[in-house]
Amino acid sequence: MLNVVIMAGGSGERFWPKSREKSPKQLLPIGSKNTMLQETVKRAQALTSSENIFIVTRVGLEKEIYKQIPHIPKENIINEPFARNTAAAIGLANLIIQKRDNVSRDYISKDKNSITVVLPADHIIKNLKQFKKTIAAASKAAEEGRLVTIGIKPSYPETGYGYIHRGDKIFTEYGSDTPCIYKVKEFREKPDLKTAREYFKKSEYYWNSGMFVWTTNYIEEAFKEYMPELYKALKVIGNSISSPLRDEIIKVEYAKLEKISIDYGVMERAENVSVIEGLFDWNDVGSWLALEKVYKKDDDGNIVVGDHIGIDTKDCILIGDESSITTIGISDLIVVNTGDVVLVCKKAEAQKVKELLKQIKKNKKLSKLVK
Amino acid sequence: MLNVVIMAGGSGERFWPKSREKSPKQLLPIGSKNTMLQETVKRAQALTSSENIFIVTRVGLEKEIYKQIPHIPKENIINEPFARNTAAAIGLANLIIQKRDNVSRDYISKDKNSITVVLPADHIIKNLKQFKKTIAAASKAAEEGRLVTIGIKPSYPETGYGYIHRGDKIFTEYGSDTPCIYKVKEFREKPDLKTAREYFKKSEYYWNSGMFVWTTNYIEEAFKEYMPELYKALKVIGNSISSPLRDEIIKVEYAKLEKISIDYGVMERAENVSVIEGLFDWNDVGSWLALEKVYKKDDDGNIVVGDHIGIDTKDCILIGDESSITTIGISDLIVVNTGDVVLVCKKAEAQKVKELLKQIKKNKKLSKLVK
Repeated sequence: MLNVVIMAGGSGERFWPKSREKSPKQLLPIGSKNTMLQETVKRAQALTSSENIFIVTRVGLEKEIYKQIPHIPKENIINEPFARNTAAAIGLANLIIQKRDNVSRDYISKDKNSITVVLPADHIIKNLKQFKKTIAAASKAAEEGRLVTIGIKPSYPETGYGYIHRGDKIFTEYGSDTPCIYKVKEFREKPDLKTAREYFKKSEYYWNSGMFVWTTNYIEEAFKEYMPELYKALKVIGNSISSPLRDEIIKVEYAKLEKISIDYGVMERAENVSVIEGLFDWNDVGSWLALEKVYKKDDDGNIVVGDHIGIDTKDCILIGDESSITTIGISDLIVVNTGDVVLVCKKAEAQKVKELLKQIKKNKKLSKLVK
Repeated sequence: MLNVVIMAGGSGERFWPKSREKSPKQLLPIGSKNTMLQETVKRAQALTSSENIFIVTRVGLEKEIYKQIPHIPKENIINEPFARNTAAAIGLANLIIQKRDNVSRDYISKDKNSITVVLPADHIIKNLKQFKKTIAAASKAAEEGRLVTIGIKPSYPETGYGYIHRGDKIFTEYGSDTPCIYKVKEFREKPDLKTAREYFKKSEYYWNSGMFVWTTNYIEEAFKEYMPELYKALKVIGNSISSPLRDEIIKVEYAKLEKISIDYGVMERAENVSVIEGLFDWNDVGSWLALEKVYKKDDDGNIVVGDHIGIDTKDCILIGDESSITTIGISDLIVVNTGDVVLVCKKAEAQKVKELLKQIKKNKKLSKLVK
């Protein structure tokens, strides 16, 4: 059996002012008429059936999520009481899948444990066929006990991603037309530009996409070995999973947890980690600038979403909607108008939106603009 | 008796998107907590009493005007059925003042005719004392039969104004501390930059401010001589001024009129035209750029009206209100956010707002943004 766990609790801060606490990036239509979550669920449905798709999110977003994906069973939407980074979110989802499997009418023995594919809800992936091939190959490796991370071949020296340095190729019997799988030599933090250029030159480095494939039991084993505190908390939660106090107990256990990513908590420590080369088009839409790779530019080099009228306007990213944008004599700017606020940002400084948000949060009158 | 005619029918297009057809520049608070019209009326009240202040405007604005200046008699708000430029507007107001004078309990003989000061509703004038001195001196010249225009000493080589080339000084007995009055040698169209620089170097050129002082009878004489069609129309309107058909007749007569400015129709043709040097601070707030002379810049050289949070933002004009503005890494831009639309405009191209408006008006979906 194959499950998909979709991570949909992010805040998408660098997509402010469109992305807000109550309607973060993954719940917005970016790069498609559908929201990013809807697109991710569609992708998941190409891999498995609706009852095996789980969404981990944070309290407050569930109503909007029910509305966006009514075909996914409500009990599969898992609300974390607080954000505790990806390790906790994945642990909680894994626990719930294991409990579901144990009580399922189609009893699945512990040995024949089920595959879980972890997908962030805010990625754009084109070429579904290649994506499915990658997941299929990764699933076979997962069944052999590997924790598989999906690596993306860098198309330029990005400094905003972590990198995976691949090791030896793993020879498998998956067939010659499947993507290659390698041992992981090392995970690398976000590099400076010089280092990113070196990585880009060599063919041994992948972008760390945050997509994973493993089995429920092997990842549980990894938590037990490398994150014993989280493992303990999950056991306590597991024992109360059918209790009316369940939500209270999750809250209590979560409150004790450190915020640790699955990369740092498990992947960088475990032995049986491998990387599969994802050959599909991938974009994590990390900032407004990423839209240049998602939307087609017009004759003046502008990307326009919504209504725009301009004079002498070149190479801009112009995002309106109900609110229009008009421009005269500008270039290389990002303009996002949401009616209550406009952002005008030099393209080269798109990463500073996070810094701007910090200032806005501190401003008593304007802090409402992040909610 | 001194009357003030305030010209409040303009569209203020270069102040879009704040200025709209239904709430043009003069009805907005620019440079003050009061609207520009309210400030102009306050200035008029320093010259005469409320019942002698007349507002010429266009149909559709009267309700907002009643609201803004409730202390001015409603019958003094004159609604033109269509815009026919300044000559017609001044002619109609002059006619109504003459009729009022003839039926007034304080009968004023034709010889001792009353002074009229014409003031656009969208000027910012500081130093009221100097302004009053100028009007007082101009009024004396007007009583002698002169059509007086107020010239402003250029403070830089502006290309957006018409200029007045002064002639000989008129020696009067008005006193040594009153502003100088000169014959007008020639009115000059908006110059190119080279010419504007020449005008600026010499002391013989003034900006044509669009403010005038004359008597009701002398300007009537001028219409009779230089604009006989308008004079005839005004006679027809005058004969029906107390009739229930008055508004209909004004409409019929107005429809026949050409759009001619008072400068072109009278001032450039008449013999008895003189210019008085207005020594007060004057700003006609002709475009967004003019705000640089109205508001104080902050430490980064920005002018901010409304809420703004920015990073690396320099020498910008940032006009929000209910809608906030956030900026990263920009300089020398004008940003105006009205919620339904934002304008982002290079400072040096502020004059192109009119061109932009033409495009917006042609756009079926967005044309609502000018109304």
